[in-house]
Amino acid sequence: MKRLTYLLLCLLMPAMAAAENAPVKYTDAASLTIVNKAQPGGPAFQRIDVARYPELTPTVTRYYRYSTGLAVVFRTDSRNIRARWTTVNQLPGANSTLIAQRGLDLYIRRDGKWVFAGVGVPSKSGTQHEAPVVEHMDTTMKECLLYLPLHDEIAALEIGTDEGALLEAAPDPFRHRIVVIGSSITHGTSASRPGMAYAARLGRTLGFGFINLGASGQCKLDTFFARIAAETRADAFLFDTFSNPSAQQIDERLEGFVRRIRESHPTTPLIFLQTEVRESGNFDLKKRAFEDAKREAARKGMEKILETDKNIWFINPGMKLGDDHEATVDGVHPTDLGFERMLKKVQPQIIRILQKHGIK
Amino acid sequence: MKRLTYLLLCLLMPAMAAAENAPVKYTDAASLTIVNKAQPGGPAFQRIDVARYPELTPTVTRYYRYSTGLAVVFRTDSRNIRARWTTVNQLPGANSTLIAQRGLDLYIRRDGKWVFAGVGVPSKSGTQHEAPVVEHMDTTMKECLLYLPLHDEIAALEIGTDEGALLEAAPDPFRHRIVVIGSSITHGTSASRPGMAYAARLGRTLGFGFINLGASGQCKLDTFFARIAAETRADAFLFDTFSNPSAQQIDERLEGFVRRIRESHPTTPLIFLQTEVRESGNFDLKKRAFEDAKREAARKGMEKILETDKNIWFINPGMKLGDDHEATVDGVHPTDLGFERMLKKVQPQIIRILQKHGIK
Repeated sequence: MKRLTYLLLCLLMPAMAAAENAPVKYTDAASLTIVNKAQPGGPAFQRIDVARYPELTPTVTRYYRYSTGLAVVFRTDSRNIRARWTTVNQLPGANSTLIAQRGLDLYIRRDGKWVFAGVGVPSKSGTQHEAPVVEHMDTTMKECLLYLPLHDEIAALEIGTDEGALLEAAPDPFRHRIVVIGSSITHGTSASRPGMAYAARLGRTLGFGFINLGASGQCKLDTFFARIAAETRADAFLFDTFSNPSAQQIDERLEGFVRRIRESHPTTPLIFLQTEVRESGNFDLKKRAFEDAKREAARKGMEKILETDKNIWFINPGMKLGDDHEATVDGVHPTDLGFERMLKKVQPQIIRILQKHGIK
Repeated sequence: MKRLTYLLLCLLMPAMAAAENAPVKYTDAASLTIVNKAQPGGPAFQRIDVARYPELTPTVTRYYRYSTGLAVVFRTDSRNIRARWTTVNQLPGANSTLIAQRGLDLYIRRDGKWVFAGVGVPSKSGTQHEAPVVEHMDTTMKECLLYLPLHDEIAALEIGTDEGALLEAAPDPFRHRIVVIGSSITHGTSASRPGMAYAARLGRTLGFGFINLGASGQCKLDTFFARIAAETRADAFLFDTFSNPSAQQIDERLEGFVRRIRESHPTTPLIFLQTEVRESGNFDLKKRAFEDAKREAARKGMEKILETDKNIWFINPGMKLGDDHEATVDGVHPTDLGFERMLKKVQPQIIRILQKHGIK
């Protein structure tokens, strides 16, 4: 049977080769559906319209211009899908692939599931990229979900399809809005490709909209994050807010942070994740002490908050990375393996909590 | 108790800070023990002395100059370990972190196990790097295993320890020599850091010397790979030789490849891994057909070889990546998650085969 398939495909090859060289028609992705934006309006490929929040620090301003967590959804019967895009950063990060930082990551719905189809590999230098994403497909109509870069700003993005093929905007495939505010772990710093950030994985698995507001290294329970949460429509919030602040910052800021959000979202479920035990503390006693104190401050702070608000949840441990010390790239940032281990523990708990609040 | 530890550490902090700023003494790593080299001699940080093999293609010549799989082993009681090193490549790869490509990855033996301690993060541009690897440790004597870059050539490497601390070469901690010849998957292309390439993971777990001769995209059963195998001392060979060649190349070359190795290693166990089912064929019918034909050619070719040589083994499937299509960075290269899934299936089989040959 396999041999037969192969022979059939050999016969089809000339047609495929022709398709490969067919003229490409480019469509501005801004004219398609962009999902997972935190708020309506603002530049097409930015997760937050930073002009609304002048109080953000320069780093958070820069990060919130990134397309982290956003995806373009469309339908096409094209055999080949290409992309042309422009980013703004010059240097690569050290603990992440270029594909995750400034590349594209395509999934196609098959039998109700989002199945990996291909990546758009960015150029190794410069900010102009053009690449195939997937080629030599059959011509059935397909529902596509294209994740945008995790760690760069998109200045322009065009989707290329075969001349004569159909390309149209598709409705947002995700129901509900779960807004995730957090650190580099949420930002997806060491996910291998954009769709492997844990919020994106949760979104595909549950069919829910997960809005990624991770800001690498920046999420220290600052007032502006609370204001953004307060002004963002959400069915639930997920917080990775104990990875970046010190124990002292948690002591000082946690209650005010929650109070500010509660002014606008009095009963919306708020789910807090305890931070990971960092592998960077395996031998570094200073880091270990800092992290131990931080987790202890989070535990104590949450204990107090849970006493008075039955719609707040604390998942502790919230980021279990296994016991072999092999789940991070650098002692801090979970790899796809780390995210897999973390989700294995946390996903069922998140599902259970959301279900209690009618989110299913 | 935790609170007490924290208070104690707070008292220790000033001493630690002093240690942090203590003068650093640099030692040429070439004067320490370098493990996992394929053959004796040649440049210190190169896995193969390419001058011995003028028939290599330019790409394989370049790759075999890389420090892939090599590690420096030493003992030290220094609180802090730093590194200064020089690499040669200018541009980053797209599907790998800079830490994996040109960074360092340190493990320290604790209770008989190699535990992740820290990475040396390379600079984001240029070829000169200087970074802490781990800091603020206690001053007990420690056995260290520092993996070198997976995808770059090391022109110079110095280990920095606190002035006055001891630093000495340590004996090779690994017994036996398992030589692994293969593709980018063996090369560790999308491992997050050097020690996460599957050969390195097998080495740490089993306590065996795994010599990494992966050559990204190049391993097409060429005669020169057989010659290198023939001239390399090994207790066993592991082959990932079906990831790069076409079905036709496997048909034409496999028997000659094995025959050439058997001239020098008549009874050494040769373990062949079947290649992965690539996620790049999820929708790309041309790639799917190419890959199906390749795996079928490998299966048939190995079937024939196994009939006449009882010391040859074929692990099929040899690279199981799970059924969620989420274990590669780009449809081809397993991430740490892919390697984890692959090892879960393959490691027990490798152990069993090696044990049959008295390698334990």
